[in-house]
This record gives sequence, C-alpha cells and structure tokens, in this order.
Amino acid sequence: MTMPAYPADLLERAAKIKLIGFDVDGTLTDGRLHYGSNDQDGKTFYVQDGMGITLLRHAGINTALVTARNSPVAAARGKELKIDHVHIGERSKLACMQRIAAQMGIGMDEVAFMGDDLPDLATLRGVGLAIAPADAHSWVSPAVHWITPRKGGKSAARDACDLLLQAQGKLDAILAHGEHP
Amino acid sequence: MTMPAYPADLLERAAKIKLIGFDVDGTLTDGRLHYGSNDQDGKTFYVQDGMGITLLRHAGINTALVTARNSPVAAARGKELKIDHVHIGERSKLACMQRIAAQMGIGMDEVAFMGDDLPDLATLRGVGLAIAPADAHSWVSPAVHWITPRKGGKSAARDACDLLLQAQGKLDAILAHGEHP
Amino acid sequence: MTMPAYPADLLERAAKIKLIGFDVDGTLTDGRLHYGSNDQDGKTFYVQDGMGITLLRHAGINTALVTARNSPVAAARGKELKIDHVHIGERSKLACMQRIAAQMGIGMDEVAFMGDDLPDLATLRGVGLAIAPADAHSWVSPAVHWITPRKGGKSAARDACDLLLQAQGKLDAILAHGEHP
Amino acid sequence: MTMPAYPADLLERAAKIKLIGFDVDGTLTDGRLHYGSNDQDGKTFYVQDGMGITLLRHAGINTALVTARNSPVAAARGKELKIDHVHIGERSKLACMQRIAAQMGIGMDEVAFMGDDLPDLATLRGVGLAIAPADAHSWVSPAVHWITPRKGGKSAARDACDLLLQAQGKLDAILAHGEHP
Repeated sequence: MTMPAYPADLLERAAKIKLIGFDVDGTLTDGRLHYGSNDQDGKTFYVQDGMGITLLRHAGINTALVTARNSPVAAARGKELKIDHVHIGERSKLACMQRIAAQMGIGMDEVAFMGDDLPDLATLRGVGLAIAPADAHSWVSPAVHWITPRKGGKSAARDACDLLLQAQGKLDAILAHGEHP
Repeated sequence: MTMPAYPADLLERAAKIKLIGFDVDGTLTDGRLHYGSNDQDGKTFYVQDGMGITLLRHAGINTALVTARNSPVAAARGKELKIDHVHIGERSKLACMQRIAAQMGIGMDEVAFMGDDLPDLATLRGVGLAIAPADAHSWVSPAVHWITPRKGGKSAARDACDLLLQAQGKLDAILAHGEHP
Repeated sequence: MTMPAYPADLLERAAKIKLIGFDVDGTLTDGRLHYGSNDQDGKTFYVQDGMGITLLRHAGINTALVTARNSPVAAARGKELKIDHVHIGERSKLACMQRIAAQMGIGMDEVAFMGDDLPDLATLRGVGLAIAPADAHSWVSPAVHWITPRKGGKSAARDACDLLLQAQGKLDAILAHGEHP
Repeated sequence: MTMPAYPADLLERAAKIKLIGFDVDGTLTDGRLHYGSNDQDGKTFYVQDGMGITLLRHAGINTALVTARNSPVAAARGKELKIDHVHIGERSKLACMQRIAAQMGIGMDEVAFMGDDLPDLATLRGVGLAIAPADAHSWVSPAVHWITPRKGGKSAARDACDLLLQAQGKLDAILAHGEHP
C-alpha cells in the first residue's frame, strides 16, 4: 500500500490536533435526510467513518459531534461511537468548539473541524485545521486547509481520521494488529 | 472561491423572480420512492437543498412546493422548511402556480419553476424562469432556461437558490455571517 | 430535444409489442434490498419509471410485474401503478409470461420482457423484445435485443417505456399535453 | 458474452476453495448504516449478491457470514440466504474462520475471505484466497489476491461468487438452465 502523499504544511497542522469536531449532515452522512410516514429523522452513516473515529479514540485524540439540527438520531450515533463531546441543536458551532477547547485547556490551533456548508463556515475559519468533504458546498472551499478525496458519509471523515493518525505516528501499530481495536 | 459564471440572460431572468416553485420527486428528492412493509411514502431530501430554501426565505423570495402525488411526507418537509406555499395532490401544477402568483399580485415573468418530467412541462413553459435538474427527463430540456449542474435531491434545488441569491445581490452578507441564518 | 436514435430493427420489434413484463429487483428497483429491525422487505422504486408505466397504460399497452421473491411490497407498487398483471413469488417467469400472452390471445413476438439476472434469462430468450438495464449482470447480455442507457431503478424501465411509445407513434400527443396524464 | 479474463494464479487459488467467508458492512452491503428514530440497525443488501451466494450453495461450496457488529439484521440476511455459517458480534474473524475450517476438516488454503477494512486484515492475511471490494479501504490492498471490479453491496460479492463458479467449472450448467435455481 502506498500512503497518501499529504502536503507538508497539512501534516504539520495535523500533528498538533488534540480535538476534532465533525458536522453531521453532509459530513458524517451524505447529507440525505430520509423522511417516512412515521419517522422524519432518518440518516445514513458509513461503517468506515465509524472505524476512523474509533481509532482516534484509541489514539487519545478527542472527538466532537456538533450539529445545528436537533436530531436524536445524530446523538444516538455519537453515543454508539463513544464520541467524547456530542452537541445537537447548536446554532453557533464555533462557540461550541471554543467552549470544548477551553474545557480541555487547549488552543484553537490544536482544534480541527470538518464541515460542508454555510453553517460551518465561521467554525472552519476559526480552527487550526479546517477540512471539508469532496462534495462540500463551494462556499466553504476558501475557508479550508484540505478537501478530502472522498465524499461526506462515504469516507470523508475517515480521510480526516487517517490524516491525523499518520501525522501523529499511530499507523504502524494499527496495521500490525489488523483486527478490530 | 470562484462564483459560477452564469449567462447574462439567465441572471437577468433570475433578478426578477419573487416566487419559485419546486416539484418534489426528482427535484427536491432524487426521485427514489422508498417502500417498506409499513410505509409506502418514503422520500429522501438533501440538507444543502434545505439550506438554500432557508436562505431564500431570509432573502424575502417566496417559495412553493407543488406535487401531483398526495404525499403527507412531502407536506411535512415543506412545513419543516417553512415553505410559503405547500400544495400536494395537484394535477395541474401550472394552474396552481398561476393562482399563487395572482394572490401575490405578481406576473408570471416574476415566477420561477423547477421540475424534472412530463407533469412539469406545461408549468415550465408558462413561467419566466424554468429550471431542470441535471438528471431531468430529456423531454423537459427544450422547455427550460437552465439545467443545473447537479442532480435532483443532491444540490439541484440549491443550485437554483444560489442563482437567485447571486442575481439579487444577497450573497456577500450571507457569506460574511458564515453561520446558520 | 433530440429523440434518441434507436436502431431500425429495435423499433420494428417494439412496434409490435402489446404486453411488456418487468422483473422487480434490479429492474424496477436498483436491486438494493433494505433490511431493518422491523422490516426486511424494503425496496426503492423511481418516480420517472412509474410515469413511463402510467403512460403505457394510457397508450393501451398491457404491463406485467413478475418476480421470484414473495414480496408484498412489490405487489403494492404494482397495484399503485395499476399494472395489469402482478405476479409475485413466481419461480418460472417464462411460464408466467406465456400464460398471460395466451389469455390475451397474442403471440410471444408481441411480448417484451425486461430483466437483469439469471432468473430472467429463459424469459428473455423466449420473447419478441428482450431488454436489460445498463447494470444488468453480464450473463444476460447475449440474450437481449437492447441494453438501456440507464440503470435499474433509475430510468431503465422508463427507457423501455419511451421506446415503445415512440415506436408506436404516441409521443407527440403526450408532449403537447405536458401535464400528468 | 465474454467471460472475464481472470489471471491464471487467481483461478488456481479459486479452484481449491471449499469455504468462503464474507464480512457484512462494506462487503455484503455498501457500508452505509441507516439510523432512524425507531431503528438503528438498517442495512442494504443487493439482489445480485444474494443470487451469487445461492448459486454457491447449489454448487456445494460452503459460505460464512462473519461480522464484528452485533447485528440481528445481518443474521436475518444470512438466514434468508441459507448461509451455512452465520457469526455476528465476532471480534476476531480469523479465529472464527479457523474454527469453521477445522470443523469442516479443510486447510486454510481451501478457505477464501472477503472484507473491506482494518477488522478484516488479519483474516485476509490468513486465508488461501483474499478478496476485497473495489471500494475497500486502501489499507487492505496489500493483503488481498484480488480486488473485485465492483463495489461492496453492489456486486462485489457476486464478482467473488462468479470467480469461484467459473474456476470450478460450474457456469455452463447454470447458464443453460437460465431460471431461478
């Protein structure tokens, strides 16, 4: 396997990260909202993204899930993945990430955030490492340091996790084990 | 970010629009109809499309949702997005849009409509700005002024919203704010 | 709009058709089978395909839905579209199509069938017009007269309907009307 | 129809296989996890993959379904397809496949396994024929003998089944029959 060739300044930013926040719709999901007669909170997550978040946890990197929608399903996914900070119904994601960073006693240059649209823009502008999925709205492009090769809900989040793991020297041990962590 | 380069006559049409109507299946959704044992009215909407409609509302442009299917789920999505005019089970979408325009006291050159198939054809022929998603049926192509770069239920409606916002000079304020409106 | 340029022998076969049968999974759907805790019969149909079948009915061409799976959901979709002959749980689709043709008093050269995999192969070999979706299994290719440009559950069936409508001279009236039939 | 041109060493490995194991999420499904208000175990399987597994059974090749997630839905799919060995909630898939092989009295060179991510890596390294879907994580590439042309949950498993059937000389009889086995 050839490791992805990340730019040097991206690796430098990623090496410092102690907390990464994820938007939900369009980032941890493909942005599709499933409505049925009895349920208007259907979302679709991706197994490889979940594995990435699990690996971050085992590597000691804090994770956050932050969404403007008041979605119990997003909260359930966050709980299942044992995400450290789960915040639903947040109008200002930037204020939320700043609060978590303050609680952790870290600077915003040690915080990464991943989002795909207008409600993520201020947050992306305010963190040390800003990442967007391949199918993010074009409005977010000027605000991010990296656009992942893959799309939201289909490995974009995993791409971000893999970057952090490689930048922080965690990959060799993971691959040698080769089973569920 | 580079703004999309819209043709001049498209911007001219878009600058006049005070009301935009959306078909549902194939336009606000990808046209897929989800059937299960207990529910035969499953549809999938897209978060970035919803954001576009929310931004139109904040910009003072009226929105309508018009569908031939008698779908409570379509009505629920319209209500959640606070769409101004929600009409389900409409056999003649043209008559419906004409009624709304008359109520608003505007001309049909100030009305836009977006649809993807035969039931939308007469309406597309009767409005000032007719738009179809990238994956619309080829029968509608001769009737529209613009085919969006992206597909129904996956940013086609957002493409239409962004066009109106740019043509009416609303984008700069939106991007400066950079959070949920 | 430019009409698709169908080969002459395809139009000749299509002009004779009085009955067309559709397989369900992979033909009227994209072949995906949705399983949840409470429902293991979830399927996804496509709005443009349904419109095609509705247009066939208005044009006086008989339709059949034939599937090996014993799926109430497939039956419900057939009923909603007012398909003339709905047969679920059929192990031999060829025998089924032959029975319907006999009831209608037509020859097998007046019958079309559309399917995507091994269980459709004998039927495709036995009808006057055999059609497969773009993403059919490669095993069926040698048995069909036409592979539609689009995929199962995403316009393959509509492609077949449009072919019949054009071959039988029904398109002009449909497009002039331009609303739900 | 042209048969796929498999490499000679791949056919040689496939000719020996008496048992094939499949991971679920990302292999028998496209890796998407559907969450709703009332169900957080939604998965999507593919009809053509199911047909491949049915054909293996009729050809006398044993099948196994092995997943780390404790998913009743995965178990239900395994039961419906009459898969010989269904194991959910397995942390070590390698140990599981070794136990089944021992019960069958066969060597690991007679075992194939198909998986898409880190939890499959040790198993892929330990079997005679290791296969990954086209959209597997890049980490598994160095461990597999074959990456299928198609993706997980959309013919990857069928590609694997077809390889075994051809390598073991079973295809002609299947195609001559041309109906549901």
